[in-house]
Amino acid sequence: MSREEDKIGSGWFEVEPFHVDVTGHLALGVLGNELLNCADAHAERRGFGMTWLHDNRCTWVLSRLVMEMERMPRQHERFCIRTWVENVYRLFTDRDYEMITAEGEVLGYARSVWAMIDMDTRKPKDLLALHGGQIAGYVCDKACPIERPGRIKVRAEEPVRTYRAQYGDIDVNGHVNSVKYVEHMLDLFPLEWFREKRIRRFEVAYHAESYYGDTLSFYREEAGDGAYGIEVRKEGGEVVCRSKVEFI
Amino acid sequence: MSREEDKIGSGWFEVEPFHVDVTGHLALGVLGNELLNCADAHAERRGFGMTWLHDNRCTWVLSRLVMEMERMPRQHERFCIRTWVENVYRLFTDRDYEMITAEGEVLGYARSVWAMIDMDTRKPKDLLALHGGQIAGYVCDKACPIERPGRIKVRAEEPVRTYRAQYGDIDVNGHVNSVKYVEHMLDLFPLEWFREKRIRRFEVAYHAESYYGDTLSFYREEAGDGAYGIEVRKEGGEVVCRSKVEFI
Repeated sequence: MSREEDKIGSGWFEVEPFHVDVTGHLALGVLGNELLNCADAHAERRGFGMTWLHDNRCTWVLSRLVMEMERMPRQHERFCIRTWVENVYRLFTDRDYEMITAEGEVLGYARSVWAMIDMDTRKPKDLLALHGGQIAGYVCDKACPIERPGRIKVRAEEPVRTYRAQYGDIDVNGHVNSVKYVEHMLDLFPLEWFREKRIRRFEVAYHAESYYGDTLSFYREEAGDGAYGIEVRKEGGEVVCRSKVEFI
Repeated sequence: MSREEDKIGSGWFEVEPFHVDVTGHLALGVLGNELLNCADAHAERRGFGMTWLHDNRCTWVLSRLVMEMERMPRQHERFCIRTWVENVYRLFTDRDYEMITAEGEVLGYARSVWAMIDMDTRKPKDLLALHGGQIAGYVCDKACPIERPGRIKVRAEEPVRTYRAQYGDIDVNGHVNSVKYVEHMLDLFPLEWFREKRIRRFEVAYHAESYYGDTLSFYREEAGDGAYGIEVRKEGGEVVCRSKVEFI
């Protein structure tokens, strides 16, 4: 195994019956959960996981997530998620993912961008200064051949839906779970679209937290070529997150 | 291993960060999913799983589910689900579950009642006649020390919420997923209740299927001693499911 290969974390998954959508393929939200779990496990083994975070009153904050799939695995299919760190900057780190089958078929790739904040001050930490700069040694040169997250603009002025955040949306930190936004955004599209097309690329940028009881307004607009921009705003207009969904 | 022990299926689970609720404990809906997955895996190994069902144009239909927990496992905790068949009747079979930790602490029990239907005619199959009566040989005498599902009555006349079934609610059979009802029912209660109390027992009885676009009305009423009855009805009044939730 090369030194670069050593830097890649991996985990095997089986697509369980309750993790598929109407088409019998893995639901995008479940894939998102698994990616975030893999990131946590990989960081944990390198000393930047939950345990260290908890002791140091820090937490990773997900800023961007892009998933781009050639195909989604089917019910009962096994696949592997591989994850590695592409870049570390002072305030952000890029973590990439590859999804492959046991036969080596690449199902797709994902990219994520993370910051680390102090839980008390909510201020960002200097990643390059942590553990004596050790994190930079984890950067891996494996390629992630999908486009980086871009700038998402949504100009729609009338929400297509409003939703009040419920018990089931809230994670252990008291925030709406980042993957729940993804699920609520997919629910803005008709069921037939998921049967007749598929999502090639899903991109989300997180801007602010929302909480139990917040009324979230969803704005959607066509962005051409089967793509849709979605913006989620809180009462008062603060943008919570923006997304771009590409159906093909 | 005794003959009875041979009849028990088991699977280990780790409580992943995205499977916990605001309290940091396994979400009830996720536990429900895992129970149903275990049932499928156990039935599969005995020749009554997805493969046989698919070839014979049959499907298991969940009629009742009761979960009763001493405590819910916490994030990153590992636990085992053990499942066995308690009874087989002509039209129904009782399947039980036990949740235990690696140290042997019993976390709780569950009970489920299933029927098998022909997918074309939607008529129930005679379970005692299948595979030459082989199913009766799987009955195990292990005890399940929680009350059987009871009769649930809800007399409330004004819905506390209405909800239109979305893409994310629909399973591969085109129905609202049985666990999604559980999640929507829990969302009827304030977040504080989950922080201050916990659910000791959750019971659900399924009466009819609902589909994409159906408007579901949720009726809730106090049943005394921290218990609540919930009824889900479709437009036109048909009862989809009824539930009883006990907070302590």
